Amino acid sequence: MTNFYIDKLAIVGVGLIGGSLSLALKAHGAVGQVVGIGRGQANLDKAMELRVVDSVTRDLAAGVADADVILLATPVLTLGPVARQAMPHLKPGTILTDGGSVKQAVIDEIEPFLRDDVQFVPGHPIAGTEHSGAEAAFASLYQGRRCILTPTARTAPAALATVHAMWEAAGCEVVAMEVEKHDRVLAAVSHLPHMVAYALVNAVGAYDRYEENILEYSAGGFRDFTRIASSDPTMWRDIALTNRDALIEMIGQFEAYLRELKDDVAQGDSERLFEFFRRSKESRDAIL
Amino acid sequence: MTNFYIDKLAIVGVGLIGGSLSLALKAHGAVGQVVGIGRGQANLDKAMELRVVDSVTRDLAAGVADADVILLATPVLTLGPVARQAMPHLKPGTILTDGGSVKQAVIDEIEPFLRDDVQFVPGHPIAGTEHSGAEAAFASLYQGRRCILTPTARTAPAALATVHAMWEAAGCEVVAMEVEKHDRVLAAVSHLPHMVAYALVNAVGAYDRYEENILEYSAGGFRDFTRIASSDPTMWRDIALTNRDALIEMIGQFEAYLRELKDDVAQGDSERLFEFFRRSKESRDAIL
Repeated sequence: MTNFYIDKLAIVGVGLIGGSLSLALKAHGAVGQVVGIGRGQANLDKAMELRVVDSVTRDLAAGVADADVILLATPVLTLGPVARQAMPHLKPGTILTDGGSVKQAVIDEIEPFLRDDVQFVPGHPIAGTEHSGAEAAFASLYQGRRCILTPTARTAPAALATVHAMWEAAGCEVVAMEVEKHDRVLAAVSHLPHMVAYALVNAVGAYDRYEENILEYSAGGFRDFTRIASSDPTMWRDIALTNRDALIEMIGQFEAYLRELKDDVAQGDSERLFEFFRRSKESRDAIL
Repeated sequence: MTNFYIDKLAIVGVGLIGGSLSLALKAHGAVGQVVGIGRGQANLDKAMELRVVDSVTRDLAAGVADADVILLATPVLTLGPVARQAMPHLKPGTILTDGGSVKQAVIDEIEPFLRDDVQFVPGHPIAGTEHSGAEAAFASLYQGRRCILTPTARTAPAALATVHAMWEAAGCEVVAMEVEKHDRVLAAVSHLPHMVAYALVNAVGAYDRYEENILEYSAGGFRDFTRIASSDPTMWRDIALTNRDALIEMIGQFEAYLRELKDDVAQGDSERLFEFFRRSKESRDAIL
């Protein structure tokens, strides 16, 4: 527990990430008032109905006007435009942060437009489910999960400390990391697996040798394995567009391993196959 | 519920598949006595301790001698040798079945050595977890899961009906299927996903740009996604060795989809990326 308390928090994008932060901070008595800002009235209505936030508005300028901290929690490609549109309306001293899964592209879009009296702390809570929207939000989403902050040369230590304390109050273990390292590590442990899951479901779904839908023969393993292919297409399009180089590198590395395995299968190499599977099981069991 | 009842069942390989069948049939009062046969005394002791079976032996000949039905539930490559070794000791009329994930290779190994007074019904209950051994067995494993039987020209209808009823009594929805179709469909919905998961864990695990273990930054998605990479290496080596052609075909189809996605990422093609993810989400949501 921390003594963190924030008077007014504005959340742009009241979905799984933004909504869950609001619920977590409320649950810990760490926030006075939360205003939810969004474009879709239906989702904002749902957020009010479920008491995810205290008030909602579709007017970005009005919503951010007197906020102490603003979390941008929209798909990665809209973070820059939203930040620039909000910028003239922020009160001096406001701390802006985000929850984007890619950091360098977001920083490049926001920092050049940052006012001198406003701070930006790039962040990424590593948590989520395959569900989206205000009704997917829940207070314990961040419990025990990591949140990575990637401060830049322009980030003031006090602002960094505030955002650090905010995510800690929400339940996260907060770590600071170089921007480039964040983008590469996440490409490996999150962005690549999503690309693989999407490609797998499409490859199996396109299998048309038989009349019936063969996915009906899938067992629990396939369902668990492909759960992340149900994630929001807009969110993942934006990630794929903004973390391109690291993602291409990781897809390439994965392709090399799959090719090695395919060769071993083709050659019926019993020892190499066993060793490939054994090594993978060992790595996987270590993170159970 | 069925009126199926079997006096004596022998299970060769008291692991997740064999042990769970025993527990399921016992729970439904569908079996008199179950003998567990295996090579490892420690696992047999565990099976007795957990009351997974009624008796155990490492003597295959003695264990199968007066069984009415025998389930072979060992890794695919050992099914043939075990069946051949057991063959002279079976009483006339015994029904032999198996739980192997590949069917043509198993049939090719067993049918040429089948006695005229013994029946073989090739089978595959589509169920499992990433755990193995007698202590992984549980009575509800088969509840609501499919079991595929792939009778051949040599399979007598009465023997097929008995094995059908046995798996139904264990909770399965039982379907009959052509051998080749089984092996192709399972290559798509099960064998390919396992290969992909094993390759993914090895690719990410080999990422050594940074000192620390980057798997620590993985979120729930990665853990769920790679759970099947914790499966038994021997079992999967045998599947990879015996369903080679179908598996190579499916890996190739998956590679083509991943290459398409990689090209879209490299070209930053927003519309194609969105459509790729949307289509995948649609297929995946349909099997939720």
